[in-house]
Amino acid sequence: MSFSESPLSTAEVEAAERLYGDLAQDIRDVRDLTIRTRVDADRVAAARALVQQASQILAEDAPPEPAGIHYNSDGKSWNWGNAVVGVRNAIAPPVVLSWDDNDVVSSELDLGVAYEGPPGCVHGGVSSLLLDHLMGETASDRHTRLIVTGTLTLRYVLPLPLGRVRMKGWISKENGRKITVTAHIGPADSDVPAVEASGLFIVPRWAQSVSDSANVGSLD
Amino acid sequence: MSFSESPLSTAEVEAAERLYGDLAQDIRDVRDLTIRTRVDADRVAAARALVQQASQILAEDAPPEPAGIHYNSDGKSWNWGNAVVGVRNAIAPPVVLSWDDNDVVSSELDLGVAYEGPPGCVHGGVSSLLLDHLMGETASDRHTRLIVTGTLTLRYVLPLPLGRVRMKGWISKENGRKITVTAHIGPADSDVPAVEASGLFIVPRWAQSVSDSANVGSLD
Repeated sequence: MSFSESPLSTAEVEAAERLYGDLAQDIRDVRDLTIRTRVDADRVAAARALVQQASQILAEDAPPEPAGIHYNSDGKSWNWGNAVVGVRNAIAPPVVLSWDDNDVVSSELDLGVAYEGPPGCVHGGVSSLLLDHLMGETASDRHTRLIVTGTLTLRYVLPLPLGRVRMKGWISKENGRKITVTAHIGPADSDVPAVEASGLFIVPRWAQSVSDSANVGSLD
Repeated sequence: MSFSESPLSTAEVEAAERLYGDLAQDIRDVRDLTIRTRVDADRVAAARALVQQASQILAEDAPPEPAGIHYNSDGKSWNWGNAVVGVRNAIAPPVVLSWDDNDVVSSELDLGVAYEGPPGCVHGGVSSLLLDHLMGETASDRHTRLIVTGTLTLRYVLPLPLGRVRMKGWISKENGRKITVTAHIGPADSDVPAVEASGLFIVPRWAQSVSDSANVGSLD
């Protein structure tokens, strides 16, 4: 695993995030319509031809490598392809996390038709995907240390309807290189969690010196 | 939560899966290119215009509801929008599961740039998403009973590189309405699991009679 230092300035990174992030938002829209549409075969063929043309344009300069994690000399870091927070990844909602004064990490977001499991509800595995990421970032203590997930335990309490959801996580215990995080996800308009989670995160021995020197974070 | 019986014949369902499934495959391609591309702003604008035109066509007849789970009088069931197995959902790889003679459920699939977490590796939460689904289907005993996830525990042993992966699950214990499933995921070319999982699945009391009468399955 590697993190790579980039010569891009923070302004250049932010401009690229807007440019390709807006494209990813268009892909999220067409992704949802592909699930919901009832148009006939001729119209599906027309839509496919347009999407394929778009792919051809984007493929004109597209190295095969995954996006990875990069940082610059300002301490700005970015992981555009991340499955949860990647602004260029149409699988990612994308989640935006915020830290409050008590170091509680939270996020509120809309989960639409592409996140379905049980009819009308968020897939149980999507809740675990989102919580795993939030908990890893929580354990990273505002990206001041690099951590890996040890174990993750999820308790499914109630079905979680598709729509606006809220999740929260906090460090509940620390013991040397072992960090325990508690978290939950539920409807944004309710205080009753649908899924409760507990995770053990570990600062790898090899990462202790890395964490001392760079803006790093969760390896999720 | 509801399952709804559909008047569609199995042949009609399969034709629709091909039609819209091929479109979803095109969306997966453009999704990956949106992460990888380095084309300039003019070309991004051209690609966005094409994708937006495709969305307009698909939106001409697109009810807002999620896809849900449907079945017909042949016992065929489909969940096109499912985040793991939905053939019309560009978030789903989609996973295809197979059952062997010993009721071991497995799947081999490619996880590309859109499933990234740590640089070059599968997001830990993606492993939990895929395992949660496979384990739920495993607990459903070839869709002969309806189950819900109770708890899920994941142990992260090794990083899982992006690429071809294999996962397996089996029922390790049954006790009345409680079913324990064991599973793991790892590189397709290795016997060493990257993530090990154990899950407790429950047949809800209200579902015991449903399970006796229909082709149902996991509520994931």
